Amino acid sequence: MNQNRPHVVILGGGFAGLAAAKSLKAAPVKITLVDRQNHHLFQPLLYQVATAGLAAPDIAQPLRHIFSRQANLTTIMDEAVRLDLPRNQVELARGRMLEYDYLIIGLGVRTGYFGNDQWKPYTLGLKSLDEATYLKRRILQTFERAETVRDTAKWSKLLSFVIVGGGPTGVETAGALAELSKRIMAHDFRRINPALTHIHLVEAGPRLLPMFSESQSEYVRAQLTRMGVTVHLSAPVSEVGDAYVVAGDLRIESENIVWAAGVEGHPLVRNIPGIELNRAGRVLVQDDLSLSAYPNTFVAGDLAFVQREGASPVPCVAPAATQMGRHAGLQIIRKIAEKETKAFSYFDKGSMATIGRSSAVTAAAGIRTRGFLAWLMWLVIHLLFLMGFRNKIGVFITWVWSYLTWNRGARIITGLNYESADAASDSVLSAAQSITDQ
Amino acid sequence: MNQNRPHVVILGGGFAGLAAAKSLKAAPVKITLVDRQNHHLFQPLLYQVATAGLAAPDIAQPLRHIFSRQANLTTIMDEAVRLDLPRNQVELARGRMLEYDYLIIGLGVRTGYFGNDQWKPYTLGLKSLDEATYLKRRILQTFERAETVRDTAKWSKLLSFVIVGGGPTGVETAGALAELSKRIMAHDFRRINPALTHIHLVEAGPRLLPMFSESQSEYVRAQLTRMGVTVHLSAPVSEVGDAYVVAGDLRIESENIVWAAGVEGHPLVRNIPGIELNRAGRVLVQDDLSLSAYPNTFVAGDLAFVQREGASPVPCVAPAATQMGRHAGLQIIRKIAEKETKAFSYFDKGSMATIGRSSAVTAAAGIRTRGFLAWLMWLVIHLLFLMGFRNKIGVFITWVWSYLTWNRGARIITGLNYESADAASDSVLSAAQSITDQ
Repeated sequence: MNQNRPHVVILGGGFAGLAAAKSLKAAPVKITLVDRQNHHLFQPLLYQVATAGLAAPDIAQPLRHIFSRQANLTTIMDEAVRLDLPRNQVELARGRMLEYDYLIIGLGVRTGYFGNDQWKPYTLGLKSLDEATYLKRRILQTFERAETVRDTAKWSKLLSFVIVGGGPTGVETAGALAELSKRIMAHDFRRINPALTHIHLVEAGPRLLPMFSESQSEYVRAQLTRMGVTVHLSAPVSEVGDAYVVAGDLRIESENIVWAAGVEGHPLVRNIPGIELNRAGRVLVQDDLSLSAYPNTFVAGDLAFVQREGASPVPCVAPAATQMGRHAGLQIIRKIAEKETKAFSYFDKGSMATIGRSSAVTAAAGIRTRGFLAWLMWLVIHLLFLMGFRNKIGVFITWVWSYLTWNRGARIITGLNYESADAASDSVLSAAQSITDQ
Repeated sequence: MNQNRPHVVILGGGFAGLAAAKSLKAAPVKITLVDRQNHHLFQPLLYQVATAGLAAPDIAQPLRHIFSRQANLTTIMDEAVRLDLPRNQVELARGRMLEYDYLIIGLGVRTGYFGNDQWKPYTLGLKSLDEATYLKRRILQTFERAETVRDTAKWSKLLSFVIVGGGPTGVETAGALAELSKRIMAHDFRRINPALTHIHLVEAGPRLLPMFSESQSEYVRAQLTRMGVTVHLSAPVSEVGDAYVVAGDLRIESENIVWAAGVEGHPLVRNIPGIELNRAGRVLVQDDLSLSAYPNTFVAGDLAFVQREGASPVPCVAPAATQMGRHAGLQIIRKIAEKETKAFSYFDKGSMATIGRSSAVTAAAGIRTRGFLAWLMWLVIHLLFLMGFRNKIGVFITWVWSYLTWNRGARIITGLNYESADAASDSVLSAAQSITDQ
């Protein structure tokens, strides 16, 4: 390869980073893709891993494999720990310094607490594969513990789950958890009755899924209630502590508090001169997705905060991240060709959310559907966009199987030595270090 | 259920425990099955999880689900920590005390070091799902590390793997690792050439797989050599240290030393009056599999050491464990009916081991096969015995897919916070405790 080609560094192998890398496939550049994981994760199905519907490898694909035929790209499994934008450098956790001509930051967002980071130790996040696997283990262990508790009065506290946040993640998790506990697990336990499980879905605003119409939100609420989920609306969380949460006037005791209420930008972009952040730590970008102070640096995906005239900001969804990533890549091609960059324009493909078996809502191009048809659309679209033919087949068979048998194949508890998922994410860096130091 | 029925406690949900429980399905007893995991594990395919061929849930099945329709059985996810045989009691880690009329111990064996426990920290075991997952992560991370190392002289040490033990586990792991590194990974890396990987298989005895004929052993050795594995015979390990192993006259530097050389009995049965152990800590049983001092207690599976007249002891394989478990269950039925117990007799169904793609050896009823036909037999028999229709389909598709594409679907690194798999197994008890204490 020509060593004089411009070097493009892409941070993050999510939807944005992937699309950016692919858009540069035929470009006269060399690309380095950096991710601390070795895989791309299909985030929209993460809640199914957490509720034992799918196995982790079903929704992940090794980055090296995705790009094995893209000759101008090298993958590095490492974590960016410092950005030096004036010098065009990125420092990696294992000590290496990458020099770039163009930089695309697609590091995404993490579970966020609106400034209440003290709640973090008491809650379970759902943004990474490790968090999802940990949540699954907690859920399954909860039932195992309840089975061995002889004091039946304790069951009600033990078998109580709180999901904070009435967006798609919260709704989908609540629905899947209700099916898991009230239908599937109910058959397998002798002493406890998992149908006694209390699942609370807590939302600060007046309705669930605000991106849908009011009647769709109401449909979702009614469906969840029918499935046994207690939905609390207009109940902003004011306090989270050890095994309890205060939401509105309500205090709910629970050892399993799932936090699906907020996200914040990746910490790497904090306190960097020339990077302007909004309140949630997401990066304010130019209309071509570049930074005003550093025109060779682009931000794409959930981490980019893109204001639109006369419309809400571009949402944090996979199609938006893909469009931004591709746009950033194409602007780099234009810059190399010494052309003017173009403004990013978001094409809204619509929204969809599943509530459970045979039940979902969709809204696209003014057409709203719900119920079985919406659910089928949800299945088909998620299978189409899931990466890898092997994964598509595997997930398809698993779904057909689960539908026919009411069973879940992935109810296996592993890695009992996890103390907390937070520790997992925090210690990645030190683990990577200790590997290098060995 | 009639509370006056005799209480049978089964420790361990492996092949022996499962068969024992099933044999008592129609018996007038109540059964408590105790396992520290929530699943039955199909051990014979564990090496495929370690080499990224299969996902963990593919080869595991929740115990509760297996027995959801057996009304006389209750499953408890907990760990037995103390046996009080004179009082007919088992103490569990979470504090509960189980009283039994009959006890079946099917706790199996663990990775063992022939009294050299100081080698343990430097080796990777392959007896539990957590060990297999950890080994997979180590293998995949090794390649990721090598890709970022600029000093190519370091590659040879970094990409060196040692597998100690030339039995089925060692042979199958060496073959799968050779395929993974030399064929599959070779396509996906840019800088390193995974074909430079050195895989050493070290065996103390004069040939691999001593349960097969000499010509079959030689066939296996030749196949492995052709696949790029360096086979060292008559090379007993005399020392294992930090990133090296001394075997025979040879000193091999490697940070990945897989220990498939020995097992030892579960520690729970140690130092208990009335339980006699052999040198490897396996229990010497009466010919009906009961203990001479405690006729109401049976030991089944790998943990039982069953001497046979004019033949080698019953081997540690799944069919033997299943036969023993069933036998123990049936003897309890006889005892309840006040009949004499019968001696266990092992029916040898034959042996098989796979070396890699299209290559295996089998020996059954005097008929020996090798090559493609043997490999097909291996595939069919493992699919037949794998539990759960969903798992059978999933594994079948994965195998067909891998065969056609040379790809492996499960190359996903998760749980980067694992420090060691040993810590994993050691801390199960304290994890279970802290859960209860919460």
